[in-house]
Amino acid sequence: MSQKSFCCLLCCTGLFFLFSLLDASARQIPGHDLPVPETASRQLQNKIAEGLPAWWKETPATVEEWQIFRNKRDESARQGLSPLLQALDVKYAAGKMGGVPVYTILPARIPTRNENRVLLHLHGGGYVLNKGEAGLGEAILMAALGGFKVVSADYRLAPEFPYPAALEDALAVYKTLLKSYQPANIGVFGTSTGGGMTLALILAAKAQGLPVPGAIACGTPWTDLTKTGDSYFTNEQVDNVLGGYDGWLRSAAKAYAGSHDMREPLLSPVYGDMAGFPPTILAAGTRDLFLSNTVRMHRKLREAGIPADLVLVEGLSHAQYLHLGPDAPETVYYFRQLGDFFERNLK
Amino acid sequence: MSQKSFCCLLCCTGLFFLFSLLDASARQIPGHDLPVPETASRQLQNKIAEGLPAWWKETPATVEEWQIFRNKRDESARQGLSPLLQALDVKYAAGKMGGVPVYTILPARIPTRNENRVLLHLHGGGYVLNKGEAGLGEAILMAALGGFKVVSADYRLAPEFPYPAALEDALAVYKTLLKSYQPANIGVFGTSTGGGMTLALILAAKAQGLPVPGAIACGTPWTDLTKTGDSYFTNEQVDNVLGGYDGWLRSAAKAYAGSHDMREPLLSPVYGDMAGFPPTILAAGTRDLFLSNTVRMHRKLREAGIPADLVLVEGLSHAQYLHLGPDAPETVYYFRQLGDFFERNLK
Repeated sequence: MSQKSFCCLLCCTGLFFLFSLLDASARQIPGHDLPVPETASRQLQNKIAEGLPAWWKETPATVEEWQIFRNKRDESARQGLSPLLQALDVKYAAGKMGGVPVYTILPARIPTRNENRVLLHLHGGGYVLNKGEAGLGEAILMAALGGFKVVSADYRLAPEFPYPAALEDALAVYKTLLKSYQPANIGVFGTSTGGGMTLALILAAKAQGLPVPGAIACGTPWTDLTKTGDSYFTNEQVDNVLGGYDGWLRSAAKAYAGSHDMREPLLSPVYGDMAGFPPTILAAGTRDLFLSNTVRMHRKLREAGIPADLVLVEGLSHAQYLHLGPDAPETVYYFRQLGDFFERNLK
Repeated sequence: MSQKSFCCLLCCTGLFFLFSLLDASARQIPGHDLPVPETASRQLQNKIAEGLPAWWKETPATVEEWQIFRNKRDESARQGLSPLLQALDVKYAAGKMGGVPVYTILPARIPTRNENRVLLHLHGGGYVLNKGEAGLGEAILMAALGGFKVVSADYRLAPEFPYPAALEDALAVYKTLLKSYQPANIGVFGTSTGGGMTLALILAAKAQGLPVPGAIACGTPWTDLTKTGDSYFTNEQVDNVLGGYDGWLRSAAKAYAGSHDMREPLLSPVYGDMAGFPPTILAAGTRDLFLSNTVRMHRKLREAGIPADLVLVEGLSHAQYLHLGPDAPETVYYFRQLGDFFERNLK
C-alpha cells in the first residue's frame, strides 16, 4: 500500500467515525404494524385502512407535469362535491371580487347572529392544486355546518403563478370584503395551504396598515414550507393523506416559493411577528404530518399574548375532516369547533 | 395424507387467509431513523438524544419486584430534587391532612392575587412510583414558576394499596382543604397518573355531592388505563420517557386496578360523565405516548360544554417538562400556561 492510499484510508475511516457520531443522536425506530385505531369513527377507520395514496411520492417539476398532476387531483376533488351538495342544503354562485374569481356559498338558513358576518375561505392544495370548484368542499361544509355566508377565493396557482400571486389574490378579495363589512364581522379560514395563507394574510394586512379581521381559523396550517418541525419526521407514513414531505409537497413548496427564501414570513408564517393578530383557532389531527406546523404556531401566538385556541382530533391525518363526508363525527366536531369560535369572537 | 389431516390443512389455510384479511388494515411502517428535532430547545434535544430508558420493558409482578423497581426509580427522582431546590426559591414542609401525608410547598413570594388560593398536587408515577419526596418535583416547579401555595398529597401506592386507595387519599386531602378554602379558590393539578387522578377526583367529588374546585390542570393525563388510543401505537418508541405501553406501564395498570374493570370511570376517566366539570387545561407533547389520552379527554370535555383548554409542546415526550430543568423553554412554557389558566379561572 502506498503512503498516499494509506492516508486516504485513514481519512475515510475518520470520516466514517465522524458521521457515525453525528448520526448517533438519531433514534432507530424498528419497522412495525400500525393498527387502525378503535377510537376513530367508522368513517375514519375506513379511510385509514385505505392506506397511503400512491401519488404522494410524485415530484412534478415542469409546468406540464404539474398540470397533469393537478388535473388528476382536481378531478377527484370535484367528484367529491356531488355527495356534499346532495347531503347539505347550500347554494353557490361564481363571481369576482377585486378582479379575483370567487364563489359565494350560502346555506339554506343563516342564523340571525351570523347575518352581518362573512367568512373568507382560502382553500388548501399546496399552492398548486384545487382550481375552481375543486377547492370548494371545505367552504360548503363550513357554510352548511356553521351557518355562515362564505366567500371562497379562487386564487392563482403555482407553478404558473408563484409567490406572491396567491397571497395578492387573497388580499384583493379581503379588501373588497372590507368595503361591505366591518373588519370585526369578517372571519378568515382555511386548511393546510389555506391555513398558512390565512396567517400570511394577517401579516400582509398588518404591513399594509389594513384592519385585521375579527377572528381566524387555521386547520392544520402549512406554517413552515421547509422540512422543519418534528412531525414531518414522526408522522411520515403515519399520515395517510400527505404521506411525507419528500414527494409532491417538497416540489410544491419550491414551485410556490420560486426564488424566495422559504423562511420569509409571508411564505412560512411561523417565522412572522404575531403581535396584533386576531383571536385564532388552530386544529390538527394526532396523525397529522402538519402537527408541528400547528403546534409551533399555537405556541408563538400564545407567547405573543394572542387568544389562540387549539383542537386536536384523535387518529386524524392531515385535513382528513375534508374527506370523511359531512356526517363523520370528526368532521362535525371540527366544523362545530370552528363555528363556535367564530360565533364567540366575531362581532 | 388422511382425510382428517387434509381437512385440518384446509382449515388452517382458511384461518391463515382470514387472519391475513383481518390484518390487512394495519399499516406497515418501515424501520427508519428519527432525528432529534431542531425545533426543540437544547435541553430537550439533549434529553431526546439519550434515547429510551432500558427499563421501560420491565414488568414487575410481585410486591417485592415492585419495591425493587420503585426504589431505583424513586432514588433517581429524589436526586433530581436538589438541582431544583438550588435553582428555585421555595420551602416545603411535611404534614398530614385527613390522615394522609402531605407536603406544603411555599414559593419565596406569593403574588397578592394568589394569596387566598391553593393548588392541590397529585403526582404521577403510574400509581406505583414516587413515594414521599420523590413525587415533589412538579409541585416545586408549579409553586416557584406559578407563584402558588401547593399542597402535594403523598397518597398510597399500588401494588401494596390498589384502587381505590390512591383516590381515597386524594379525596381526604381535598376535603380537608375545603374546610379552609372556598372551592372556587382551589385548583387541582397533576401529570400522567396525577392528571388522571385529578379527573377521577372530580368524578368522585360529584358522586359524593362535594363542590368541585375552581379549575383543574391535567398534564398528559392517564385517562385510559387500557391500551386504547392511537398514540399508544403511533408514538411507541417515539416517546423516550415511557417507551410504550407493553412494559412496566401495563403491569402498573394491573397492579392498581386489581380486580376492577380498568374502564371504570374512576380508573379511566375518559369513560366518565364530564357534566359539571370545572374549567380544565390539558397539555401533552407531540411525541407523547399519552397524546390520545389527552386529546380524547379534551374532546369529551368540549362536547360536554366544559371550557377546556389544550396546549401541545413540540417534540416533547410524556411529562418531559419535569425532566429538563426549570430553565428549559418547554418547562417554562408549560408551567406559565398552567399558571395563567389558574389565574384566569380561580376566584
